[in-house]
Amino acid sequence: MQLTEEQLAFAQAAREFAQNELAPQAAQWDAEEIFPKEVFRQAGDLGFCGLYANPAIGGLGLGRLDAALVFEEMAAADPSTTAFLTIHNMVTWMLGEWGTPTAQERWGEALSQGQLLGSYCLTEPGSGSDAASLRTRAQRQGDKYVLNGSKAFISGAGDTDVLIVMARTGDDSARGISAFAIPADLPGIVYGRKEQKMGWNSQSTRPINFDNVELEPWMLLGEEGQGFRFAMKGLDGGRINIATCSVGAAQGAYDAARLHMSDRNQFGQKLDQFQALQFKLADMLTHIVASRQMVRLAAHKLDHGDPQASTYCAMAKRLATDLGFQVCLDAQQLFGGYGYLKDYPVERLVRDTRVHQILEGTNEIMRVIIARQIIDQGADIR
Amino acid sequence: MQLTEEQLAFAQAAREFAQNELAPQAAQWDAEEIFPKEVFRQAGDLGFCGLYANPAIGGLGLGRLDAALVFEEMAAADPSTTAFLTIHNMVTWMLGEWGTPTAQERWGEALSQGQLLGSYCLTEPGSGSDAASLRTRAQRQGDKYVLNGSKAFISGAGDTDVLIVMARTGDDSARGISAFAIPADLPGIVYGRKEQKMGWNSQSTRPINFDNVELEPWMLLGEEGQGFRFAMKGLDGGRINIATCSVGAAQGAYDAARLHMSDRNQFGQKLDQFQALQFKLADMLTHIVASRQMVRLAAHKLDHGDPQASTYCAMAKRLATDLGFQVCLDAQQLFGGYGYLKDYPVERLVRDTRVHQILEGTNEIMRVIIARQIIDQGADIR
Amino acid sequence: MQLTEEQLAFAQAAREFAQNELAPQAAQWDAEEIFPKEVFRQAGDLGFCGLYANPAIGGLGLGRLDAALVFEEMAAADPSTTAFLTIHNMVTWMLGEWGTPTAQERWGEALSQGQLLGSYCLTEPGSGSDAASLRTRAQRQGDKYVLNGSKAFISGAGDTDVLIVMARTGDDSARGISAFAIPADLPGIVYGRKEQKMGWNSQSTRPINFDNVELEPWMLLGEEGQGFRFAMKGLDGGRINIATCSVGAAQGAYDAARLHMSDRNQFGQKLDQFQALQFKLADMLTHIVASRQMVRLAAHKLDHGDPQASTYCAMAKRLATDLGFQVCLDAQQLFGGYGYLKDYPVERLVRDTRVHQILEGTNEIMRVIIARQIIDQGADIR
Amino acid sequence: MQLTEEQLAFAQAAREFAQNELAPQAAQWDAEEIFPKEVFRQAGDLGFCGLYANPAIGGLGLGRLDAALVFEEMAAADPSTTAFLTIHNMVTWMLGEWGTPTAQERWGEALSQGQLLGSYCLTEPGSGSDAASLRTRAQRQGDKYVLNGSKAFISGAGDTDVLIVMARTGDDSARGISAFAIPADLPGIVYGRKEQKMGWNSQSTRPINFDNVELEPWMLLGEEGQGFRFAMKGLDGGRINIATCSVGAAQGAYDAARLHMSDRNQFGQKLDQFQALQFKLADMLTHIVASRQMVRLAAHKLDHGDPQASTYCAMAKRLATDLGFQVCLDAQQLFGGYGYLKDYPVERLVRDTRVHQILEGTNEIMRVIIARQIIDQGADIR
Repeated sequence: MQLTEEQLAFAQAAREFAQNELAPQAAQWDAEEIFPKEVFRQAGDLGFCGLYANPAIGGLGLGRLDAALVFEEMAAADPSTTAFLTIHNMVTWMLGEWGTPTAQERWGEALSQGQLLGSYCLTEPGSGSDAASLRTRAQRQGDKYVLNGSKAFISGAGDTDVLIVMARTGDDSARGISAFAIPADLPGIVYGRKEQKMGWNSQSTRPINFDNVELEPWMLLGEEGQGFRFAMKGLDGGRINIATCSVGAAQGAYDAARLHMSDRNQFGQKLDQFQALQFKLADMLTHIVASRQMVRLAAHKLDHGDPQASTYCAMAKRLATDLGFQVCLDAQQLFGGYGYLKDYPVERLVRDTRVHQILEGTNEIMRVIIARQIIDQGADIR
Repeated sequence: MQLTEEQLAFAQAAREFAQNELAPQAAQWDAEEIFPKEVFRQAGDLGFCGLYANPAIGGLGLGRLDAALVFEEMAAADPSTTAFLTIHNMVTWMLGEWGTPTAQERWGEALSQGQLLGSYCLTEPGSGSDAASLRTRAQRQGDKYVLNGSKAFISGAGDTDVLIVMARTGDDSARGISAFAIPADLPGIVYGRKEQKMGWNSQSTRPINFDNVELEPWMLLGEEGQGFRFAMKGLDGGRINIATCSVGAAQGAYDAARLHMSDRNQFGQKLDQFQALQFKLADMLTHIVASRQMVRLAAHKLDHGDPQASTYCAMAKRLATDLGFQVCLDAQQLFGGYGYLKDYPVERLVRDTRVHQILEGTNEIMRVIIARQIIDQGADIR
Repeated sequence: MQLTEEQLAFAQAAREFAQNELAPQAAQWDAEEIFPKEVFRQAGDLGFCGLYANPAIGGLGLGRLDAALVFEEMAAADPSTTAFLTIHNMVTWMLGEWGTPTAQERWGEALSQGQLLGSYCLTEPGSGSDAASLRTRAQRQGDKYVLNGSKAFISGAGDTDVLIVMARTGDDSARGISAFAIPADLPGIVYGRKEQKMGWNSQSTRPINFDNVELEPWMLLGEEGQGFRFAMKGLDGGRINIATCSVGAAQGAYDAARLHMSDRNQFGQKLDQFQALQFKLADMLTHIVASRQMVRLAAHKLDHGDPQASTYCAMAKRLATDLGFQVCLDAQQLFGGYGYLKDYPVERLVRDTRVHQILEGTNEIMRVIIARQIIDQGADIR
Repeated sequence: MQLTEEQLAFAQAAREFAQNELAPQAAQWDAEEIFPKEVFRQAGDLGFCGLYANPAIGGLGLGRLDAALVFEEMAAADPSTTAFLTIHNMVTWMLGEWGTPTAQERWGEALSQGQLLGSYCLTEPGSGSDAASLRTRAQRQGDKYVLNGSKAFISGAGDTDVLIVMARTGDDSARGISAFAIPADLPGIVYGRKEQKMGWNSQSTRPINFDNVELEPWMLLGEEGQGFRFAMKGLDGGRINIATCSVGAAQGAYDAARLHMSDRNQFGQKLDQFQALQFKLADMLTHIVASRQMVRLAAHKLDHGDPQASTYCAMAKRLATDLGFQVCLDAQQLFGGYGYLKDYPVERLVRDTRVHQILEGTNEIMRVIIARQIIDQGADIR
């Protein structure tokens, strides 16, 4: 995967943004659970809020691979904030793909520029990995819909402006699900208590209750019954994004550990002179490079419409989030006692990346997806 | 390792104490960084503050294996609070073994009963794993000592009453180190900022500066130059204790995951009906049982003065803390998104057990210790 | 698990036997696929052919733990030959437990002394892990039975004198299975081609066809329908035995690697001076000790009729065979290119221990067994 | 890494060759230790004996990536035979790069076409991983050299026609080493006993003694003192080649396991319906894809003269050979008892791939190489 000049320039811009805007504040956002709206606006100025969104609404129209380069650099400094940015990008992209003209006109530019922020509402208390079993219902009444139900684990909920909501308009199957883009402050939308989490603290996470929320026709994305298909398309990208955040965070943790090892003395030697620790570092690097390649392969497949793109995305997500978390743990170990303190970023990187193995479909679900292709579809994936 | 009736009764008492006094409050102590002094006093009423301390000072005089049974049960509910209790027990034990009559009379009973609490001051900013290189100095002046230097990562520091301090009274070798038990509020003892940590939040951790602190002769433990030997003896027990806390926490996480799996539905089945998750649970249990056996073997060796006891302690600490942390991670994964929330204890167990791989000698140092016996000493350990 | 004087003496005798009789010839037996009957006779002289068999038939009547000590020492030199000896011990034990007086009189002493050898016939081509689905049938005709069917993977088949055969006398359930001890040369018993295997080459392995083999009433073990129960009881012991062989082989491989590392120079140093290799050695030892403890715990539980003994046996088998094989691989790696040559025992130990993860119920089946206890039975195993 | 039409055609040709010429005979070559010269000649007809060799001597002049595609397909059927072919390709390539006109004229075409075969003689009994410490000496006498010393683990030795020999012409440093291409039957070349190995049995491996072997000037490759540099250049390619053989073998093992699982019933279901086994298969595939990407990345770097190409080659070799062997083991486990029999290729794939973790620099040496770049050179590898 040779990168173009333009891609390298994008990555460089993202790296500088990360160093200047994210790194200095990430620890505070984590400790005080601050959702850094201002930073998203600055990211929007660089085009980072609509990286692969339709240019018609103000997006850059780039590919998934391009976006991955940006997200990876940012995640090295702050996976939590970056991960929210990827969710916002998904919302912007969905609006650009399937939003009605009214919706696109109303929100497109503002989302692309990070002046408004979006949340994505798929998961429910009773449907985690089993997304298709969702029970939130948008009941047709005349040309409107009345939305009732609950969503859980919604990133940004309570702090964002637009919600993309998956709700049932038809039968109990996946085909009975539709997608809506709705204002986050419609009457009847009730935000629950902010979740107390292990990490991802720069993202507010809340459950949402919909209590007879009236939706207008222009809020529907695409057509009725297409919601699950949109969700699945979104998930492929979401998996690349989260995997990318793991690669970036792992690189950040590795870089920090490498520096620490060249600085810290024990038993009369620099840490980086102990062979067993050198070997650990070598394996960390190897696993980062392998993860990055898998993520880029999947992004490339998705960009080129490969029929097995979903399988590659699942493999990339599984591998990169498992290896990425392990690299962060290894880096933490190399810091010794200091690795357990919040004074050093590696502690936060461990907490932030832990959820990547769970989100966007747990890594167990990734294996289900891969196995289904292998076994049920007899796919010959190489 | 068949347990006696008495041992089982002790374990049962500890389990009840853990369920009644620790489990209901552990999350709050963690979130609010509360050092639960009152609970240590209650533990003292049950004898848990001087489990293996000399009966002459009010200790129970039990073995390490007995103590491990108690600590394991408590750690299932709260490894952080339990781990501090193990440190306090070490302090009490050291006082009972090597304290002067004056020191024993002054503090023995109160420490054994948990009315006073102790901290153990070995680690320094520049000497983590390499304990023997410590630089804090207790300079003889007449029959007194003047203490100068810094300690780091001291559990309980600022909230405890007695400090056991390792300081150099002689040359730069391990034989130049002496141990002192001193009042925590002597003039010249300055406590630093409370560390912000990933976990172990019910223990305050602070650095300490000693600025011309005057020590009286009765504060010396044993004789001059014996400090490092005491520290090493303490470490063996400390490693069993920390390994025990990992076993207990892993058992707590496993029990919680098992219960959750029997409750949570996905894709129309209880989680515990999915074979891949069943296999995970089976491996978790196997690793807990194996870890427990290793810890008890090491405790038994230590209780019986086996010449290779230190090696067994190192092996037990390495294995049990690695496997224990992994079991906690696995349990967290089995909870899915809920595992990332502070509403469920498993999230805290992950954060608390992470440090066990680092403390009391990192697991890398454990390998150094084991390898030294194998290679330099040619020991045939089985 | 403290060993008695007597147990230590047994282990010592076994170690000497292994060094004198097995080690010098094991490579040749492997290369030339020699089934060393003479050595089994010598083992019989020491009581090793009926270690836990009923003294009434000439067995020593020892416990499983005692037997494990003997097998472990032997397996350090030759796991293949030792594993066959464990199978023979199982046959002897079954005869002593459930054989008719006629059968016991005819074979008891000779089996106990290793003058005759036994094979155990449970597995069938279509029923590997799913033992209860076996289809070999012993059809009652008058007071005789007519045996028809096929067995697969039978150790010693074609070279042994007595077969214990599991066959269906009743319905298709587990309760329809009976056990028989029969002469290996009855008319109608046809031995297939000797299997070409990765290892375990000192054991001949053949399929067996039973073509209208007439069985006499005295050949039945216990009563009709008890066969599966016997098989299950045998399996618990079989799992301890195979796990023990893994522990022994791992110890043998570790000892060889340790010696090699103290001898071989690279880059101007002995191999054992490279820290990363020292750490590997430390982990190998730790895993051997942990495996041994698990096996002894399970043996102890089985000896004392613990209701969860089967679960402990499954855990011990899973852990010890996985870790044991890994230790052998690690030892092979420490030998570098020499580890790949048949000149050094470690290459054979790798091939021989590989099958331990598969035999006596694959390690996947072990997890099924453990999980069933945890989930279906709600067992609280610690 | 998108493949071109031409690359895909090459891979397809290699796949057919593997299926038609290697797969049907590989088990026999292994069992009977047959070095299949005829097959190398057939491979030569397809250009597979000089894939990346200089067209001036009859090579195809392709890149390392192109070659990897060919080798991977062949290794799926027979890693041992393929691995020898890669060694032969290295010999042909070295001759084409640095051979004198006389040497190229004499052997170039015949090696390129597989009519003659070559061996590569670097390793010595006392210098495994530490190649630069080799002691074989080529003493200048007039315009000739007299070669004395020993080589070990030489693939094809005794069955090949041309030897590339690394020998010391100067001082004890790496700069004192020169390379020669010599006839394999010169007076004074004595081949030792064929090594008995765990696998790689279709390659004869022998030690070689050089006893006053007279070399003529035209046998020198390049100039005096360049040998170690040539060896290092060769090693990068060699590592890609061996890593490729692991990827291919893993794919072959995976394909076989997948097929077996769709065929074999246990407990009333196809094996491929058990979730835990499905997950295993999913992880196997993921690891194959990740390994392949790493190998192709390294080949691409090498083809394009990337200054860090050696580091990427080391990472690819480490990862792909570790994961590839594990995939083969996993496939073997999925076959149950059948996986232990030589009737199924997977048993051979396990034995053959085991040595890939040891050869061409052990995987420990790979970590040394990677760590040296990271730590000593401060390289920022991504």
